[in-house]
Amino acid sequence: GWAKIDHHRSIRKGIPEAIYGEGKGAEQIVKIAQKMSESGHPILVTRVCPQKASEILKKAPFLEYNSDARLLHSPISPPNNSDKKVITVPVITAGTSDIPVAEEAAITLELNGIRAKRIFDCGVAGIHRLFDHIDVIQKAPVIIVVAGMDGVLPGLIAGIAPCPVIGVPTSIGYGANFKGVAPLLTMLNTCSQGLCVVNIDNGFGAACVAALICSRIKEFNP
Amino acid sequence: GWAKIDHHRSIRKGIPEAIYGEGKGAEQIVKIAQKMSESGHPILVTRVCPQKASEILKKAPFLEYNSDARLLHSPISPPNNSDKKVITVPVITAGTSDIPVAEEAAITLELNGIRAKRIFDCGVAGIHRLFDHIDVIQKAPVIIVVAGMDGVLPGLIAGIAPCPVIGVPTSIGYGANFKGVAPLLTMLNTCSQGLCVVNIDNGFGAACVAALICSRIKEFNP
Amino acid sequence: GWAKIDHHRSIRKGIPEAIYGEGKGAEQIVKIAQKMSESGHPILVTRVCPQKASEILKKAPFLEYNSDARLLHSPISPPNNSDKKVITVPVITAGTSDIPVAEEAAITLELNGIRAKRIFDCGVAGIHRLFDHIDVIQKAPVIIVVAGMDGVLPGLIAGIAPCPVIGVPTSIGYGANFKGVAPLLTMLNTCSQGLCVVNIDNGFGAACVAALICSRIKEFNP
Amino acid sequence: GWAKIDHHRSIRKGIPEAIYGEGKGAEQIVKIAQKMSESGHPILVTRVCPQKASEILKKAPFLEYNSDARLLHSPISPPNNSDKKVITVPVITAGTSDIPVAEEAAITLELNGIRAKRIFDCGVAGIHRLFDHIDVIQKAPVIIVVAGMDGVLPGLIAGIAPCPVIGVPTSIGYGANFKGVAPLLTMLNTCSQGLCVVNIDNGFGAACVAALICSRIKEFNP
Amino acid sequence: GWAKIDHHRSIRKGIPEAIYGEGKGAEQIVKIAQKMSESGHPILVTRVCPQKASEILKKAPFLEYNSDARLLHSPISPPNNSDKKVITVPVITAGTSDIPVAEEAAITLELNGIRAKRIFDCGVAGIHRLFDHIDVIQKAPVIIVVAGMDGVLPGLIAGIAPCPVIGVPTSIGYGANFKGVAPLLTMLNTCSQGLCVVNIDNGFGAACVAALICSRIKEFNP
Amino acid sequence: GWAKIDHHRSIRKGIPEAIYGEGKGAEQIVKIAQKMSESGHPILVTRVCPQKASEILKKAPFLEYNSDARLLHSPISPPNNSDKKVITVPVITAGTSDIPVAEEAAITLELNGIRAKRIFDCGVAGIHRLFDHIDVIQKAPVIIVVAGMDGVLPGLIAGIAPCPVIGVPTSIGYGANFKGVAPLLTMLNTCSQGLCVVNIDNGFGAACVAALICSRIKEFNP
Amino acid sequence: GWAKIDHHRSIRKGIPEAIYGEGKGAEQIVKIAQKMSESGHPILVTRVCPQKASEILKKAPFLEYNSDARLLHSPISPPNNSDKKVITVPVITAGTSDIPVAEEAAITLELNGIRAKRIFDCGVAGIHRLFDHIDVIQKAPVIIVVAGMDGVLPGLIAGIAPCPVIGVPTSIGYGANFKGVAPLLTMLNTCSQGLCVVNIDNGFGAACVAALICSRIKEFNP
Amino acid sequence: GWAKIDHHRSIRKGIPEAIYGEGKGAEQIVKIAQKMSESGHPILVTRVCPQKASEILKKAPFLEYNSDARLLHSPISPPNNSDKKVITVPVITAGTSDIPVAEEAAITLELNGIRAKRIFDCGVAGIHRLFDHIDVIQKAPVIIVVAGMDGVLPGLIAGIAPCPVIGVPTSIGYGANFKGVAPLLTMLNTCSQGLCVVNIDNGFGAACVAALICSRIKEFNP
Ligand SMILES: Nc1ncnc2c1ncn2[C@@H]1O[C@H](COP(=O)(O)O)[C@@H](O)[C@H]1O
Ligand SMILES: Nc1ncnc2c1ncn2[C@@H]1O[C@H](COP(=O)(O)O)[C@@H](O)[C@H]1O
Ligand SMILES: Nc1ncnc2c1ncn2[C@@H]1O[C@H](COP(=O)(O)O)[C@@H](O)[C@H]1O
Ligand SMILES: Nc1ncnc2c1ncn2[C@@H]1O[C@H](COP(=O)(O)O)[C@@H](O)[C@H]1O
Ligand SMILES: [Mg+2]
Ligand SMILES: [Mg+2]
Ligand SMILES: [Mg+2]
Ligand SMILES: [Mg+2]
Ligand SMILES: [Mg+2]
Ligand SMILES: [Mg+2]
Ligand SMILES: [Mg+2]
Ligand SMILES: [Mg+2]
Repeated sequence: GWAKIDHHRSIRKGIPEAIYGEGKGAEQIVKIAQKMSESGHPILVTRVCPQKASEILKKAPFLEYNSDARLLHSPISPPNNSDKKVITVPVITAGTSDIPVAEEAAITLELNGIRAKRIFDCGVAGIHRLFDHIDVIQKAPVIIVVAGMDGVLPGLIAGIAPCPVIGVPTSIGYGANFKGVAPLLTMLNTCSQGLCVVNIDNGFGAACVAALICSRIKEFNP
Repeated sequence: GWAKIDHHRSIRKGIPEAIYGEGKGAEQIVKIAQKMSESGHPILVTRVCPQKASEILKKAPFLEYNSDARLLHSPISPPNNSDKKVITVPVITAGTSDIPVAEEAAITLELNGIRAKRIFDCGVAGIHRLFDHIDVIQKAPVIIVVAGMDGVLPGLIAGIAPCPVIGVPTSIGYGANFKGVAPLLTMLNTCSQGLCVVNIDNGFGAACVAALICSRIKEFNP
Repeated sequence: GWAKIDHHRSIRKGIPEAIYGEGKGAEQIVKIAQKMSESGHPILVTRVCPQKASEILKKAPFLEYNSDARLLHSPISPPNNSDKKVITVPVITAGTSDIPVAEEAAITLELNGIRAKRIFDCGVAGIHRLFDHIDVIQKAPVIIVVAGMDGVLPGLIAGIAPCPVIGVPTSIGYGANFKGVAPLLTMLNTCSQGLCVVNIDNGFGAACVAALICSRIKEFNP
Repeated sequence: GWAKIDHHRSIRKGIPEAIYGEGKGAEQIVKIAQKMSESGHPILVTRVCPQKASEILKKAPFLEYNSDARLLHSPISPPNNSDKKVITVPVITAGTSDIPVAEEAAITLELNGIRAKRIFDCGVAGIHRLFDHIDVIQKAPVIIVVAGMDGVLPGLIAGIAPCPVIGVPTSIGYGANFKGVAPLLTMLNTCSQGLCVVNIDNGFGAACVAALICSRIKEFNP
Repeated sequence: GWAKIDHHRSIRKGIPEAIYGEGKGAEQIVKIAQKMSESGHPILVTRVCPQKASEILKKAPFLEYNSDARLLHSPISPPNNSDKKVITVPVITAGTSDIPVAEEAAITLELNGIRAKRIFDCGVAGIHRLFDHIDVIQKAPVIIVVAGMDGVLPGLIAGIAPCPVIGVPTSIGYGANFKGVAPLLTMLNTCSQGLCVVNIDNGFGAACVAALICSRIKEFNP
Repeated sequence: GWAKIDHHRSIRKGIPEAIYGEGKGAEQIVKIAQKMSESGHPILVTRVCPQKASEILKKAPFLEYNSDARLLHSPISPPNNSDKKVITVPVITAGTSDIPVAEEAAITLELNGIRAKRIFDCGVAGIHRLFDHIDVIQKAPVIIVVAGMDGVLPGLIAGIAPCPVIGVPTSIGYGANFKGVAPLLTMLNTCSQGLCVVNIDNGFGAACVAALICSRIKEFNP
Repeated sequence: GWAKIDHHRSIRKGIPEAIYGEGKGAEQIVKIAQKMSESGHPILVTRVCPQKASEILKKAPFLEYNSDARLLHSPISPPNNSDKKVITVPVITAGTSDIPVAEEAAITLELNGIRAKRIFDCGVAGIHRLFDHIDVIQKAPVIIVVAGMDGVLPGLIAGIAPCPVIGVPTSIGYGANFKGVAPLLTMLNTCSQGLCVVNIDNGFGAACVAALICSRIKEFNP
Repeated sequence: GWAKIDHHRSIRKGIPEAIYGEGKGAEQIVKIAQKMSESGHPILVTRVCPQKASEILKKAPFLEYNSDARLLHSPISPPNNSDKKVITVPVITAGTSDIPVAEEAAITLELNGIRAKRIFDCGVAGIHRLFDHIDVIQKAPVIIVVAGMDGVLPGLIAGIAPCPVIGVPTSIGYGANFKGVAPLLTMLNTCSQGLCVVNIDNGFGAACVAALICSRIKEFNP
């Protein structure tokens, strides 16, 4: 009774509703998932810790859990590789500690039928590691860049990429990092053109923006 | 000597370098503009107050000034209306006070060959005013939404639009608005899918992201 | 000896004193509750975790515990449905995660003889879910709206309701949410007329304001 | 063209739309005022400095200006003193420096047909000054309390009043006052029951909440 | 070797050095305590949790532990009641939750040969509870007032007391309390004369200031 | 009518009411001063800029203006030097830029019959300059220490003085000074014993605390 | 009388005292400068606006003013170019708007007998501009890097330089830049090794650290 | 695959790459360490808790663990005491609680072939303890000063040392300490010359800056 699922969303936006898992109990999530599943909706629950996930999986075996990304989701059908229309979006991280947030983004992309190209651990303290991937950067429709600590990488990539870049600050860091505020501010104040930002640790949100850009690339007729 | 113009940028990014006008003197801006003009670059100087602008215009008559947007720029060639490839991007504001930032975005779009559709003063205190434009929202490739005070409008539009929305918080407000921090946080914390954010009052930055999305729509082949 | 109960409060304000349970031990709360009970006062203890509650209930069996709302309280006598004078106050939430704070408000209302009409999970990411309840909104004497993340809903409802709206920001969210600061600022900066705010997660406080409005509606003679 | 007046608001909410004057030019305000005046709406423009006001008054002589409250408004018809239905709302300030914000509230009340009872300069440094007015406090339907610096007064009054209290923090203070953040936090953290808060310096907003409470007192039938 | 005890302090200041217990291990504290004990210094260790205390007490049985105040200390010799020179300092709290911090202050006073008069739970939500103690307030040499949440009480007492008042904000509260920042700001912005402030939860520091005032009262000759 | 002077304060507290001059007009201040003067009260108006002061002095020639301290006040009768009971309080500053705030404190002391010993420009960048005054520090009943930038001096002095120290942070500094927040935090976090703090730039407040300590030294009988 | 110059500093530290000009009057600065000049000290006054400078120069013609750096100083004797011991320190800026702070650093270096190599406008939006200077970076004893907005450049240079880098955040930027807080945080959170930071806009302070490093390079014998 | 070690760094900077241990699992760290070890790189893993360390040590027995500093590292070869070229760097702390951060710095120095001179517990509450070490301070090439709470010590030492001082704020403190923000601000706002700062608790970063200064002292030829 209490949960009002927005079934209409996938029609309206092309992206189905996701469930914010953090504040909810296992039982509550199971009920919502069952309801959505019955009406044939793809399911995505964000920010689910391993323990809660295993409780849920017992009662909702039609779901899968990705512990890196802390996501519970419907099975992902791998994109048909011969399908020319499958778009590939690079998901780049500055450090290895940023990988969980990047995985949240990558899997959300895959749930939306987009191929995610993972490029991890390319931070500016050894910037030559990024240059191996210059080709991917120059051919992308949009790039998701995930960075904690100083948050420098997204602006750097926006300085060379000919496409929009979505920066995701992470809460990785200590001291004057303030749980991700430092990289958030770095990104908001970028001097590079073409960088926009989502909330700290919001890999899901970045993937939604990227998915909508991809859908416009495919479907928009001026 | 001191200023190193990034001539290479328009090739690299498809968007020419812009000059941040706020900290610079009239003379300094004139010199940079002349140098860029000589090498055939389009010119855009942001955040120029009227007084400084009129000083500059005396020595750089090849520029135009838009006092609403506080921009100095090369003349804009109106998009050829019969050109089917011209894309139209809606630029929406919540209040009338947000118009200057919206104009900064709109003119930057026009300088990049994109048509800007201005829809101003549609804030949530009388949300029915927005619904008159539902058609434009549903057909857009990307939407720029400018809002100060509570910053509610971008999330609301992202809730109904099938395209990415770029939120621009403005510094309009008082008290616990903290010069735009309140609407910035509102937008970063949105529950709607497909909203990304740029710096407070950064109409220019929003337009750059939008222009790159439009260029990908036109040019990207998966 | 150390605790000085304000017995006089229910006479002075029409609302009995409540006990802030967070910093206090089970024993301490039992003693205060017994003392209040002896002098015939209704009892309300806020922010009591389940474990502490069960300890208290052993020694104070005249209390009831609501684990959603984390409230310990005297039994609630259901309002006489034939009593025309019973007022109904809507308690609305944006997400399902906001329900605990809303329950704190609803039960506090019921302890004050007011009927609480619960309407949960109506956030702006799917705003049509709100419109099913437009009738309730238009007939209410006052509305309590509970919202975390972006805190957009209270302003939206204040934009259409012909009565005062009390916004309760919750600490639901992450990153730049800052444990409820983001929705608090959204509500303080609303452009809608008729919205006032209480502390983050303070469902109890919102209900007190609402109860006083209801008591004025019943008793005030200009 | 650019300004979309919300004519429908007075029907929907019982309170007509107000114009936020701060960011707007004199000319712009004159145009909006004329348009509203033509369709018979009462006019209220907030946050207008004296100089801008005198410019506006030349072209919109049907308005009056209150320089204390920085309000431009339609003439106020004094409430018919024999009318028993006229409600009186106390507007109390802590210091003399808070008077401008209190006047903004008082005049907004009067424009809504409510009598404002001004009680100024009653701060806690000499709390006996408040006790002379205990009678007014005990008989009010709702009280607006305006306070800067430490913001202590609203909670104190809420501790003794049997009606809702609306606290308005002001930006009066210096140092660790942070332009009104200190009194805002004091009020949000009050231990008193029945206090709600609006934005710093928002006398207008407080009056809107109060006016809606008064209209509910008059019109609501459970 | 690593710890350099400031043996000279009690001569220089009249107050012996205290050990900040929070970051230190049990072993480390035992060693420092033994060293101080050997040279005949009174010992005070602040912010020691019960578990660490019991570990320490096994090896340093010459110490006592007060779990309310989280203090480990040398035995307190009760002030000779017939000694006319013993000064009494009131330690007042707003709520019962503030008692631990108040106890830290009270015991520190007692270790310095001052009588502490505990008056707890007198907050402004029922201000009449304070008036029972007006006599103590008017005769004190200095008053320590401990308050969390809105932090209103110290300013109120400073408004009536003819002596200096030392305000101690506590971290009791939630939401926009920000762990004691709200009451700290309230106290710093007080309009009352004669109020000074120490760090949040710093009962020890408040007692040191009070002890020095008392020592000056006894010993100072203009 | 609007201003309610607290005539009773000098009896209650031993310190007469002061007028906060910042938000008030010249006329308003003149009226309050005349009223206080008529009833024989000493007058002190804080935070009056030179221009407003000269306007006021024309109509209230019984006042004097100190432009360093920005104070308007009744004439100060120099303490009778043979009077053994006159207490001397050192007022120390870290830099020369802190002098205005120190003067506000010094003159407030003098208005309360206390001798102020000014020791200016002794900051820690050349700490030997402080040691010339070690004698004064060791004999004082209480010390006021005014410091901006890093705010280090008060803690340093509290480390050696056998009396309470009142720290006054000033808004002198730039960048991460945040208008005095940095020195305020330094002082609140001091490891020295016997330091308490007042609001940023609040020389007046510090002097009130010091004056009450002096009055207790003279009058208190345990 | 009031100003106590720290004549001993140049002996103790090898760097003479500087005068902080911001809060001081022209007259006050003239007096201090004359006193220092008489005893043969080099003079440096920081943060002097042009108007104040010209007033001072009239009475202290032995000083020079650099309006870019807002410094008043004794004449600089150009380093003897044949002197092999003269060290060169690069002073690099991200944008042209950062030049004033860089000049403050450069001139302070020159006053200490160090050659400043100015490299301006090399920000990351066009990072190739930096690579022209890779040689200078690799041979430096220490590098000062001045950057506003996102503050990315110092970390980038620290990623490639084999010497310590001193980052100076500037207050250039808008919106979520918070007057230099954003670049300050970026630098504090750097992942690069060898970067340390001074206060926002503190070119003087950075030069002092660099000068001490240079003096250790010349004089230190392990 | 995912981790890209920056092997080139020790050539480029003279300091090998360190691994940030906080967000990484034991397994992940083991793999990186093995890879680095195979290619003959010295290894340093920061911020490893004891439990994770013992897990790692089982599989990477070529590492050592320092539990004070929370560092995992390759064995340190003690500097050859007869080697005249070994430089000694003092590492000073204000309190005993700051020792862990100081140890992180000291061991990092030692891994870089520098001797660390530990001087702990010299805070300003008993400043005479510092003066016993004046000799070390005056002969150092660079000093690392670690301080929490008020963060006063680094500025004090910079006031007397003829070499650069690197301040490390620690998160030791409570209340308005804000986990190290207070001492960070104190250090950034210092009036002393020659002080620069690294992130809160960043002993490692301070040692890197110091090591680069030492390498410049040894190797730089102007
Ligand atoms: N990780 C996330 N970050 C931001 N928004 C989310 C996240 N997960 C789900 N949401 C959105 O938040 C809303 C969930 O609210 P709820 O009703 O509490 O599940 C949905 O509209 C989702 O689109
Ligand atoms: N002082 C004020 N504080 C808060 N909101 C206001 C104020 N004055 C007007 N408003 C509201 O803000 C909106 C004005 O936006 P605008 O279109 O920019 O005039 C209207 O919906 C008003 O109800
Ligand atoms: N709770 C406390 N709050 C503030 N300062 C304290 C506290 N307890 C001890 N101190 C002071 O902090 C210093 C202790 O530092 P440490 O060497 O780490 O024990 C001493 O100089 C004490 O005077
Ligand atoms: N721009 C500056 N930033 C930081 N400190 C400065 C600056 N200019 C001067 N100082 C230092 O601040 C102190 C000046 O204080 P004052 O006595 O007010 O001139 C001196 O010790 C200077 O070393
Ligand atoms: Mg890495
Ligand atoms: Mg409008
Ligand atoms: Mg939902
Ligand atoms: Mg007053
Ligand atoms: Mg109580
Ligand atoms: Mg000085
Ligand atoms: Mg540039
Ligand atoms: Mg110690």
